[in-house]
Amino acid sequence: MAFLPVYGCPFTREGDQRREATLDDYERFVKLSQVFPEIDMAGGTLVEPNDRPLDSRHLDMLLALMTLSDKPFMGSVTSGPNAADTIAMAEILFGGHEMIEETPVVLSIINVNSPLCFDDRMLAAMLEYTRAGQPVIVTPFLLMGAMSPVSIPAALAQQTAEALAGVALIQLLRPGCPVVLGSFLSNIDMQSGSPMFGTPESAIGLYAGGQLARRYGLPWRSGGGGLTASQTVDAQAAYEALMTMLPAFLSGANVVMHAAGWLESGLVSCFEKYIVDIEILRMLLKAFTPLEISEESLAFSAHQEVGHGGHFLGAAHTLERFRDCFYRPLLSSSQNYERWMRKGAEDATARASSIWREKLAAHEPPALDGAIREELSVFVAKRRSELGD
Amino acid sequence: MAFLPVYGCPFTREGDQRREATLDDYERFVKLSQVFPEIDMAGGTLVEPNDRPLDSRHLDMLLALMTLSDKPFMGSVTSGPNAADTIAMAEILFGGHEMIEETPVVLSIINVNSPLCFDDRMLAAMLEYTRAGQPVIVTPFLLMGAMSPVSIPAALAQQTAEALAGVALIQLLRPGCPVVLGSFLSNIDMQSGSPMFGTPESAIGLYAGGQLARRYGLPWRSGGGGLTASQTVDAQAAYEALMTMLPAFLSGANVVMHAAGWLESGLVSCFEKYIVDIEILRMLLKAFTPLEISEESLAFSAHQEVGHGGHFLGAAHTLERFRDCFYRPLLSSSQNYERWMRKGAEDATARASSIWREKLAAHEPPALDGAIREELSVFVAKRRSELGD
Repeated sequence: MAFLPVYGCPFTREGDQRREATLDDYERFVKLSQVFPEIDMAGGTLVEPNDRPLDSRHLDMLLALMTLSDKPFMGSVTSGPNAADTIAMAEILFGGHEMIEETPVVLSIINVNSPLCFDDRMLAAMLEYTRAGQPVIVTPFLLMGAMSPVSIPAALAQQTAEALAGVALIQLLRPGCPVVLGSFLSNIDMQSGSPMFGTPESAIGLYAGGQLARRYGLPWRSGGGGLTASQTVDAQAAYEALMTMLPAFLSGANVVMHAAGWLESGLVSCFEKYIVDIEILRMLLKAFTPLEISEESLAFSAHQEVGHGGHFLGAAHTLERFRDCFYRPLLSSSQNYERWMRKGAEDATARASSIWREKLAAHEPPALDGAIREELSVFVAKRRSELGD
Repeated sequence: MAFLPVYGCPFTREGDQRREATLDDYERFVKLSQVFPEIDMAGGTLVEPNDRPLDSRHLDMLLALMTLSDKPFMGSVTSGPNAADTIAMAEILFGGHEMIEETPVVLSIINVNSPLCFDDRMLAAMLEYTRAGQPVIVTPFLLMGAMSPVSIPAALAQQTAEALAGVALIQLLRPGCPVVLGSFLSNIDMQSGSPMFGTPESAIGLYAGGQLARRYGLPWRSGGGGLTASQTVDAQAAYEALMTMLPAFLSGANVVMHAAGWLESGLVSCFEKYIVDIEILRMLLKAFTPLEISEESLAFSAHQEVGHGGHFLGAAHTLERFRDCFYRPLLSSSQNYERWMRKGAEDATARASSIWREKLAAHEPPALDGAIREELSVFVAKRRSELGD
């Protein structure tokens, strides 16, 4: 499974402050994605850098992805020329066109404008990536009740038809081009029309979606890992996030977008939520590690040593293993109430706020050849000027 | 699956106020358990009524359970005589000894004093229930690192041995007496010694525990549904609760205690947490409802009507089903940010506070024959006076 951070949000939330996001926010989210080993890719549009000109901000994002992280990244899909810029910069970074043809380097997300439409700009981007042999995720964007009928089987049939149409087009253009079968399936609130996330319907859709992807023998993207409609980092944000992340694990997803930082139905990339999601992800990665059953883990000697009515704190078996025998939380607290009160009675969100700041401070830019960095900067400056920004 | 409310906590939390619990709190938790259809039993020691004398408070609790709810309840296990009082009151309520022998009416929880010990008082209570043909849940209480070795296979072997010892004793005393194989498996923080809940280790223990119970052909109790170490109703409380509730579902638990209201490692019964847990429970009950695949749910006609590029809000298939096609949340909000701010920017915990108050106000005591009620009161008064309270 590959876990990617939040994608596509126009706003950011930091503590109690919610505002339009900037390039500085963008860069901080890239740095967090670089720092956490649970996150496998640096991401794409982690948050919209609204303080940069619209025509050329894809260049700012790509430069940040390439210089602040050495994890794989996502490409721009807002137009054909922006996709071409992504490929050109990837060629500079990885040593030329042949290199990226040999081993694809950029994964991009192409949404279907459901029902049953592909948008011109996204389609143009998809064609650029396909021509360059780079994989895309073809994702029907389905909120049942709006873009699909109000029943799960109908939405799954539509999802399959739409995604396979994209996959087939890619294979017609370039047989063998790598591709990921995408899904993004939830429902609207039929009273208000607003989107809902982490719903029982989306969980069922995920389980069936994974089965369908395996039927077609294709790698599969679940909608996301930490989806929620909540406006703030509260209990709802946490249970809805886990109600999407655990089904993603159980359904065998290969690519999990939005695995950290998503808030408010995807309008907000939130720093504190990023930490809550990382904790959930770490717990599940541990919970899905196969159980080792051996003489040693059965620990009969510890029972012989302790007998009945004693305790295992000081047993030899315990003393040999206490440092790493259990999952150690990043965020969760099990402090007793009195100690917790003395230390400021900080809830999980308040603690998350300290954690992301510490982790951000620990970021170091990865090693990158000076000549490549210079070539990237020259390319960005040239394209920015051509675009009139 | 049977879902029971929180059990055994000395403190209560209501909003930001945490304090010693009283009989009034106890009665309010019984009423909530009566009101919510997702909760199958009224519970037992939902919270400790500390303002009542220790020797006779089991009578206060039983009277509340029998008069404020008509759901099945749990018996007192603090001593043999208290168990005998439970049985005597159950006989009054259900029409005599033969009636409760024919159809057992009270389920009680007997913990093993792990490792490998049964406590005198609990054992005495167990013997009373067994003599009366009433089922108990035999539960090894295992926090790995303290009451069991620091590895899951070792804890599972111990859990099996301890629980089966209790089951075997019951069957020796009264062959065929109904019984539930219990588990309560988590771990301590090896740095501080404090208990942790919703951990990856407890989830793995649940999956394997369910398999073992099925191997022995016994009904099975998972540790609980909404366990958490969190001190307050925050993101941690929610993800840890779901990290115990979802494994309880996946592991096929038959009895799920602590399914609503548990907080702070079982020290606190919390009203707001009760509502968060009910929401989680409702979502999972819906998510585990088998998917119906039929011509109607495939909704091809809706696709024919809408075509490509349209939307399904006004489709005939939608209009016929919009009222009940999707899960409707009790607590979760998908309001847009501006509206949410205008309405007071209440997080899930603040909203939960209003919800439990509304639900409590809707409680009505179930019908109960006046003569039975009188007989119960007389019994309680007599026993209270015998106990010197």
